Amino acid sequence: MSIVTCRFSMSLDGYSAAPGQSLDEPFGVGGMRLPQWQFEADRPGRENDAALIAEVDAGIGAYVMGRKMFGGGGGEWDESWRGWWGEEPPYHAPVFVLTHHERAPLELTGTTFHFVTDGIESALERARAAAGEQNVSIAGGASAVRQCLAAGLLDELVVHLVPITIGAGERPLDGAGEQTLEQVSVVVSPTVTHLRYRVIR
Amino acid sequence: MSIVTCRFSMSLDGYSAAPGQSLDEPFGVGGMRLPQWQFEADRPGRENDAALIAEVDAGIGAYVMGRKMFGGGGGEWDESWRGWWGEEPPYHAPVFVLTHHERAPLELTGTTFHFVTDGIESALERARAAAGEQNVSIAGGASAVRQCLAAGLLDELVVHLVPITIGAGERPLDGAGEQTLEQVSVVVSPTVTHLRYRVIR
Repeated sequence: MSIVTCRFSMSLDGYSAAPGQSLDEPFGVGGMRLPQWQFEADRPGRENDAALIAEVDAGIGAYVMGRKMFGGGGGEWDESWRGWWGEEPPYHAPVFVLTHHERAPLELTGTTFHFVTDGIESALERARAAAGEQNVSIAGGASAVRQCLAAGLLDELVVHLVPITIGAGERPLDGAGEQTLEQVSVVVSPTVTHLRYRVIR
Repeated sequence: MSIVTCRFSMSLDGYSAAPGQSLDEPFGVGGMRLPQWQFEADRPGRENDAALIAEVDAGIGAYVMGRKMFGGGGGEWDESWRGWWGEEPPYHAPVFVLTHHERAPLELTGTTFHFVTDGIESALERARAAAGEQNVSIAGGASAVRQCLAAGLLDELVVHLVPITIGAGERPLDGAGEQTLEQVSVVVSPTVTHLRYRVIR
């Protein structure tokens, strides 16, 4: 059965990004220590990381992401802006971007971005339809994850727990209220622990 | 070498207690789900939990705890109040209680509570002296842990990560600022994951 899943790197104090996110520093000022493990997943001894990413990302047929994740800060955007993922984004599937600004779909190599102005439930519905038998992943950022969790729309949560505290930033689990999860698996790697949970509803 | 260690149960959203802590509900209203695993550690299939507790608690020669952890809410206290741990508290070692109110030591069966009015560093110094070759444990609550981490006084941190979110309460890692930890071990159990970290200073 198709599920809605989500994965993100999180510091031990619950942040998925440091303050001061920008085009140059998408994880905020100093926040690159959060996804660092992922850029090192091809190193010797990090086979667990590479295998975990491959396993979690397999079978994803569509993505939902927040406006900032598509690229840039708040405010108006220019139709000529093609996001910060380059001409061949890493998704290779339809991506539904939550925004307040209508815009025609943007087709790049392997990935088409669709812009959804009527909220997370609508975006998820369209993503589910596009994914068919495959899963839908909430690609971030923190706000999109928060909305999904709070609305009871998430089936699975994969937290890449990074052994640092950063003291400030965006917390994807804030506002989740009271949720009960079930531990599905824990994968340990030298610089990160991967916690996979099923959301009990 | 003697170290300063600390362990606590924490929800995935970073809380070690729910709001509304009281004598009747020391983990706050609804917060008993946080330490629940510990009360079930003698059940079949929970051997990892029991072994982990025994291993972490071995070799602790003295404790430091916050005022609320000794018992009761804020405000004045009555010298006749003997804390909420009963006549034989579970510590069986000297316990140094952070408080603003001077008070003579309280000797109970196996455990003596000493009341320290000049701050966390002084309490730790006295606890270290009392522990000798053994370790010192910060017994909580959240505020005592926060003070230790922020002041760079903690050598080890053991987080019992409980697969729930509770949405509000006390966060022991708030105010820790930027800290780098090293993963020492991860122990998985059916209802909790135990993460042991060395604090890098």
